[in-house]
Amino acid sequence: MTSQLHPLKWNDPLITLLDQRLLPGKVEYFDCASTEDIRGAILTLAVRGAPLIGIAAAYGMVLAWRESCIDTDIKNQWLLILEKKARHLVSVRPTAINLSWAVDRMYQKAQTGIKNKLSAEEIDSLLVAEAKQIEAEDIILNDRIGTFGAELFTNPVSILTHCNAGALATAGIGTALGVIRKLHAKGDLRHVFIDETRPLLQGARLTATELQEENIPCTLICDNMAATVLRDKNVDAIIVGADRICINGDTANKIGTYGLAVLAAYHQVPLYVAAPFSTFDFSLQSGAEIEIEERNGDEVRYWASYQTAPADVDVYNPAFDVTPASLIAGIITEKGVLAPPFTSSIAQFRKEILS
Amino acid sequence: MTSQLHPLKWNDPLITLLDQRLLPGKVEYFDCASTEDIRGAILTLAVRGAPLIGIAAAYGMVLAWRESCIDTDIKNQWLLILEKKARHLVSVRPTAINLSWAVDRMYQKAQTGIKNKLSAEEIDSLLVAEAKQIEAEDIILNDRIGTFGAELFTNPVSILTHCNAGALATAGIGTALGVIRKLHAKGDLRHVFIDETRPLLQGARLTATELQEENIPCTLICDNMAATVLRDKNVDAIIVGADRICINGDTANKIGTYGLAVLAAYHQVPLYVAAPFSTFDFSLQSGAEIEIEERNGDEVRYWASYQTAPADVDVYNPAFDVTPASLIAGIITEKGVLAPPFTSSIAQFRKEILS
Repeated sequence: MTSQLHPLKWNDPLITLLDQRLLPGKVEYFDCASTEDIRGAILTLAVRGAPLIGIAAAYGMVLAWRESCIDTDIKNQWLLILEKKARHLVSVRPTAINLSWAVDRMYQKAQTGIKNKLSAEEIDSLLVAEAKQIEAEDIILNDRIGTFGAELFTNPVSILTHCNAGALATAGIGTALGVIRKLHAKGDLRHVFIDETRPLLQGARLTATELQEENIPCTLICDNMAATVLRDKNVDAIIVGADRICINGDTANKIGTYGLAVLAAYHQVPLYVAAPFSTFDFSLQSGAEIEIEERNGDEVRYWASYQTAPADVDVYNPAFDVTPASLIAGIITEKGVLAPPFTSSIAQFRKEILS
Repeated sequence: MTSQLHPLKWNDPLITLLDQRLLPGKVEYFDCASTEDIRGAILTLAVRGAPLIGIAAAYGMVLAWRESCIDTDIKNQWLLILEKKARHLVSVRPTAINLSWAVDRMYQKAQTGIKNKLSAEEIDSLLVAEAKQIEAEDIILNDRIGTFGAELFTNPVSILTHCNAGALATAGIGTALGVIRKLHAKGDLRHVFIDETRPLLQGARLTATELQEENIPCTLICDNMAATVLRDKNVDAIIVGADRICINGDTANKIGTYGLAVLAAYHQVPLYVAAPFSTFDFSLQSGAEIEIEERNGDEVRYWASYQTAPADVDVYNPAFDVTPASLIAGIITEKGVLAPPFTSSIAQFRKEILS
């Protein structure tokens, strides 16, 4: 039920990544041998999708640990070097919190190892195990999210999705696409409409590829056609992933999600966010506090080497936007679907996970 | 004040067109020598923009007349052949009414000539003069629309526009861009945000090119960024062109306009439509009656020869959508700005024009 394309594989001492920038035209894998390699892969979107970035960074922290131990023989310097590398890794993309969540978790594991006076090799093993654990957990989380999301619907439904929150964005069946796969499996999926998702077309290139592979009935549209589709094509729900969710439910996700949420409200179509615990930022009160990454304008001015706008025109290219909680019908997590008011349902979710 | 790029020139017996598909990368002109040539140019969007399509078709009718006279010596067959060619020309793109409006006007001129027993050459001269008249009128209309639109704002404003309703879509300064040019000229334009307008990127390729040429301050965005721009960037109004306006004010325009109108209402930003008399279809009661052209899915699956989606994925590619009158703040015409309720203001406008 997962994609034939494996976005990430730990081939100790290498991280093998599918180059997602080349899809669907080319299926090419490449190896990352250093923290810098994995940082570069995240920066250039060769690997992307909030949960998958977290997993890639977790394995990246294994490499960072090894580099720290090579850098110096002085044992009490290792953690300092690792921390510096961790900060550098986290800085590569500011919006998806799964990145810092995974890096923090790996760093704490190393810290515990140092406290317990373990050897470099012992800590290495701990870190490899922890990264594998993060990856394995993600597969289970996706499955649970998919099941809880699919239970929302008891009749065959049509779903609209944006960007790619699928197998290519996670270690498993995906978050939003996990729900879609589970709906398909239980015979409750009529159709999927896929926003192509400018500027980098993750919907057209990745989501369409995933759904085509599994013969899930789908139609690709340009983002600006969503309003017409919501009006005319009997869409029952919109399901998207998330990059960071605040404690009040405000959600950062791929640029275009906010507009889609406004259109959904106007057409009385519920919009659901599908995301695991690692996507929640319990330090942020509301979406106004979320840092939104702005990317190079050439992503809009060119497609590959083909110029699609004047070379010197000013471009505004935020990679994400913030959807206010008031426009979200529910947040599909591994513990069930959180309902409004989110401040209390998210607090309860946190308690359940941490207990 | 008009663009350096001339989208159309009558070089008797040829119609010279700027190939708008190649902009902004290449500035290339080509000649149309027959009705089929001009029909092909309209079909493939080498020439586009509702008013300009009308002008291209008007000159196309001159060529159609000449072909009719060559086809046969039997004078009473000429009008029949011309009518057939006219119908074929009109069928090329169903949504923009300016096409049939211009073709009808030319056909009626020929009909009058036949009734008055004029010679083929005399009718030829009449038709050339009529096409030139349609072109010359458009320049004046654009100017008036620009002036009336600019009078809506008395303080410097930021405008968001979609697609290209500019010099490249008309014979003059444009409709929506006519208003923007006039605002700029009177010092009342702060900034323009340009929707790139998928799938064919008329905003990125054409509008950005026009505004850059004249140093009008502008920023290019992807269509799915408009919601964020409307929320965060102090946009005072949205101004767009139109392809067909019903007697109740429902308006067909480039795909994405409807969604933009919903977003505008949500953010309390007024959306104005700028269009001349020839854009109104007085035979249609409401937008439900407008035929929406669907174009080839490869426009979404490929950029130039670059594949951006699975080759066999289903695509929904409507070229236009319908914005209900309830979401339109005003329609900027050559006689002034029509205000809601549009049923009465449009009826009054019609009376004024026809009187």
